[in-house]
Amino acid sequence: MNKSRVEAFSDGVFAIAITLLVLTIAQPDNYKDLSHQLAARWPSLAAYVVSFAVIGIMWLNHHSLFGSFERIDRGLFYLNLLLLLTITFLPYPTGVLGKSLALGEGTRTAAVFYAVTMAVNACAWSALWLYASGRRRLLKDSFPEEERALATLLFTIGVVLYALAVGVAFLNAYAFLALQAALAIYYALDPVNRRPGRRRGGPASGDELAGGTGLTNTPGRLRRRS
Amino acid sequence: MNKSRVEAFSDGVFAIAITLLVLTIAQPDNYKDLSHQLAARWPSLAAYVVSFAVIGIMWLNHHSLFGSFERIDRGLFYLNLLLLLTITFLPYPTGVLGKSLALGEGTRTAAVFYAVTMAVNACAWSALWLYASGRRRLLKDSFPEEERALATLLFTIGVVLYALAVGVAFLNAYAFLALQAALAIYYALDPVNRRPGRRRGGPASGDELAGGTGLTNTPGRLRRRS
Amino acid sequence: MNKSRVEAFSDGVFAIAITLLVLTIAQPDNYKDLSHQLAARWPSLAAYVVSFAVIGIMWLNHHSLFGSFERIDRGLFYLNLLLLLTITFLPYPTGVLGKSLALGEGTRTAAVFYAVTMAVNACAWSALWLYASGRRRLLKDSFPEEERALATLLFTIGVVLYALAVGVAFLNAYAFLALQAALAIYYALDPVNRRPGRRRGGPASGDELAGGTGLTNTPGRLRRRS
Amino acid sequence: MNKSRVEAFSDGVFAIAITLLVLTIAQPDNYKDLSHQLAARWPSLAAYVVSFAVIGIMWLNHHSLFGSFERIDRGLFYLNLLLLLTITFLPYPTGVLGKSLALGEGTRTAAVFYAVTMAVNACAWSALWLYASGRRRLLKDSFPEEERALATLLFTIGVVLYALAVGVAFLNAYAFLALQAALAIYYALDPVNRRPGRRRGGPASGDELAGGTGLTNTPGRLRRRS
Repeated sequence: MNKSRVEAFSDGVFAIAITLLVLTIAQPDNYKDLSHQLAARWPSLAAYVVSFAVIGIMWLNHHSLFGSFERIDRGLFYLNLLLLLTITFLPYPTGVLGKSLALGEGTRTAAVFYAVTMAVNACAWSALWLYASGRRRLLKDSFPEEERALATLLFTIGVVLYALAVGVAFLNAYAFLALQAALAIYYALDPVNRRPGRRRGGPASGDELAGGTGLTNTPGRLRRRS
Repeated sequence: MNKSRVEAFSDGVFAIAITLLVLTIAQPDNYKDLSHQLAARWPSLAAYVVSFAVIGIMWLNHHSLFGSFERIDRGLFYLNLLLLLTITFLPYPTGVLGKSLALGEGTRTAAVFYAVTMAVNACAWSALWLYASGRRRLLKDSFPEEERALATLLFTIGVVLYALAVGVAFLNAYAFLALQAALAIYYALDPVNRRPGRRRGGPASGDELAGGTGLTNTPGRLRRRS
Repeated sequence: MNKSRVEAFSDGVFAIAITLLVLTIAQPDNYKDLSHQLAARWPSLAAYVVSFAVIGIMWLNHHSLFGSFERIDRGLFYLNLLLLLTITFLPYPTGVLGKSLALGEGTRTAAVFYAVTMAVNACAWSALWLYASGRRRLLKDSFPEEERALATLLFTIGVVLYALAVGVAFLNAYAFLALQAALAIYYALDPVNRRPGRRRGGPASGDELAGGTGLTNTPGRLRRRS
Repeated sequence: MNKSRVEAFSDGVFAIAITLLVLTIAQPDNYKDLSHQLAARWPSLAAYVVSFAVIGIMWLNHHSLFGSFERIDRGLFYLNLLLLLTITFLPYPTGVLGKSLALGEGTRTAAVFYAVTMAVNACAWSALWLYASGRRRLLKDSFPEEERALATLLFTIGVVLYALAVGVAFLNAYAFLALQAALAIYYALDPVNRRPGRRRGGPASGDELAGGTGLTNTPGRLRRRS
C-alpha cells in the first residue's frame, strides 16, 4: 500500500514535469513575422523533445526499478525525493538551453548546465540503487543475485557516461544535444535485455511492460526482474 | 497492473495539459480599458475552448482505445509517449493562434502551425493503432476481426482529414478554427457508432461509457470493444 | 471502473486548477520597497483564497454528486467536461480580479467577468444534474425520489443566486468578492443537511464524508445519498 | 473509499505544488553573460531546494498522519483544505525570497513573508491534529492513548518553533533559510522515533515507510501508528 502511494506520488511528479516542459518554449516576440519567429525557435523545440523523451523513459525506468523492490523505507523515500528534485528541475535547464541555442549566445554554459543536471540525476539513480540493493536491503527475493552486481556496474557506467557528456557540452552544445538524444534512444532500445540468450519464455503474465524495458540512466537488466 | 499504471500516467498528462491551457490566454496589458482588453481576447478564448474540447475528447478516446488492448508492451509505450508529446505540446500552438487572431497578425502561420500539430497528432494515433492491431499484437481476443479493418480505415481517414485541415489553415485561420470545432463535435457525436443497426442490447454492464464514445482523431467503432 | 477513471481524471483537473491559482498572484515589480509591494497585492491574495475555497468545495461537491450516480454515459461525460472547463478557466478571472483591485482600475469589469464565469459554472452544475436525474437516467436506485425534486429546486436556486451575484458585481467589486466568500462558507456549512430532523443514525459505514457535505453551486441534500 | 479519494486529491496537490516550484526560478535576463546570470541565481536555487524538501517531507507526514485516522469527516476536509492552501501558496514566497536574495533587496521582508507562510502552515497542521485527535474523534482504535498527548505537545512545539523562525527571519534572511533547511533535516531524521527504547520489533508488515518517518511541522511519534 505505502509503496504504491509513493509510486503514485512519483508518477504525478513525472506527469507534471513532462507536461510543464511546454512552458519552456518562449512565446513569439512579435507576430508580424511569425513564421520566422517560430522557425528561430527550433532549438527550443529540439530541447523540449529531448527532455520529454528523457523524462518519459525515466518514468518507465522508475516504474520498473520500483517493481524490483519488496518494500520502501525512509531512506529510499528521501533518495527518491532527491531523484524527483533533479527531474522536476529539468524544465529550467531545458528552457535555458533552447533559448541560448536560438540566440546563439551562452550556448556552452547552457549545455554544461543541462549536462550537470543530468549528471546529478545519474548520481541520484545510482544512489537509489546502491541503497536499495546493498545487502539486498529492499530487493524482492526473486531478484537474482547475479544480476545485482551487473546492475550496479551498469548504473556506475551511467554515471561515467553522463559525466563524460559534461565534457562534450564544453566542446559543443549541438553535439551535446545530439548525444542526449542518442543516449535516450540507446536506453529506449534497451540493448542489454535484447542480447542473444537473454530472451526467456517467462511466465505468461500478460505483463510485457515489465520485461525488457531500458531507460535513460539505468541498466536495462533491472527491468527483467520487476 | 502495468497497463493501468501507464493509463494512470497518461491520465495525469491529459489532466495537466487540459488545465495548463488557461495559461495560454494573455493577461490584460492595461486595466484602464479592461472591458475592451478582455473583449479583444475572444480569439484566445475560442482557441482555448476548442483545444480544451480536443484534449477532453482525446482523453475519452485514449481511455476507450486502451480498453481494447489486452496488454501493453515497450513499443506501445513509446508510441503512447509520442502521442502524449503532441498533446502536451498543444497549449503552445493554441496560445500562438489565439494571440495571432487577436492581433490580426501572422494568422495564417499560426493556423498552419496548429494544424500541423494536429496532423502529427493524428499520425501518432494511427501509428499507435497500427502497431497495436497489426497481427492483433495487443488486442483483446474479444475484439472482432471485422472491426479491425474498419478501424484502420477510419484512422487513416482521420490522418487524411487533418492533413486537409492544414490546407484550410492556409486559406483562412477563422475557417480553420471553425473546422477544428466541427471536427471535435463530429467525433463527440460519434455518428459511426450511432448508425442504424449498430445499436445492440449489450450486457447490462453498467458501463455505458465504454460503448459508443467517439473522439477526435479516432474511429468511434473502436469504442464498442472496450 | 470507467466511472472511477472519469472521477480520477476530474480529481486531477481539480487538483491542478487549485494549485495553479498561485500563479495568478503577480510577482513584485521591484524589491526595493518589497513590503509595500506585497501589501498592495492583498486583493490578489483575497481573490486567490476565495477561488481556492470555491474549487476545493466544488471538488467535495463533485465527489458527492458522482456518488449518487449508478454509472456514467457519454452525455454526462461531455457535461462534466463543460463543468471542468469552467473550473480550469477560473484562475484567469481570479488573476484579473486580483490585479484590477490592486490597481484600482477596471474593478467593475473584472468583478462581472469573474461573476459571469461563476454563473456559467452554476449552469454547468445544473445541466449535469438535470441530465443525470431526468427520468432517473443515471441515479442509483437508492437515491430517494422525494429528494430528486428538492435537489433540482436547489440547483435552480443556485443558478439564480449566481446570476444575482453578477448584479452585485456591477455595483461593487469588493461587495462581490465578499459575497463569493459568503456563498462558499454557506455551502461549506451545508445548512440544508443540518436542519432539524435530517440527522439520521445511518449505517456505521465509517464514511462520514459522503453524508452531509454541502458545496458551492450544489444542493447539500444530494450528498446524503452518496 | 472516501478517505482514499481525499488522500489521492491531496497527493495530487502536493505533487503539483512541488513540481511548480521550478517556475519560481527567474529566467536569465540576457544570455551574453549566461554563466554569471546563472551563478547569480544561486539563492533562488537554494530556496527552491529548501521548499522542495519541505513539501516532500510534508507529503510523507500527511501520508502518515492520515494513516492514523479511521475516517474523514467534513471538518477534517476543510482543515485539510486550509493546510493545502498554505502548501500550494509556498511557491510564491519561495520565488520572492529567492529573487530578493539574488538582488540583495528586500531580503528581510521576503524572509519574514516566507516565515509567516510556514508559521500559518504549522498552525494548520496543529489544527488538523487537534480536531482529529480531540476526544479521539477520528483516530483509529489502535492509536495508543499515551501517544496522543505527546503528539499534541510536539505539534504545539512545532508552532512555537516556526513562530520563532519568524523572529530569525527579521534578523537575517540567510540565517532564516539555513534554519529552514536545518528544520527540514531535523524532521527528516526523525529523532523522536529513533530515541533508545523506541525501536520495536513490530509486525513484519513489509510496511517500513509507515514506521519511523518524521516530517516538517509534525511530531515523528505519530508515524509509528499508521
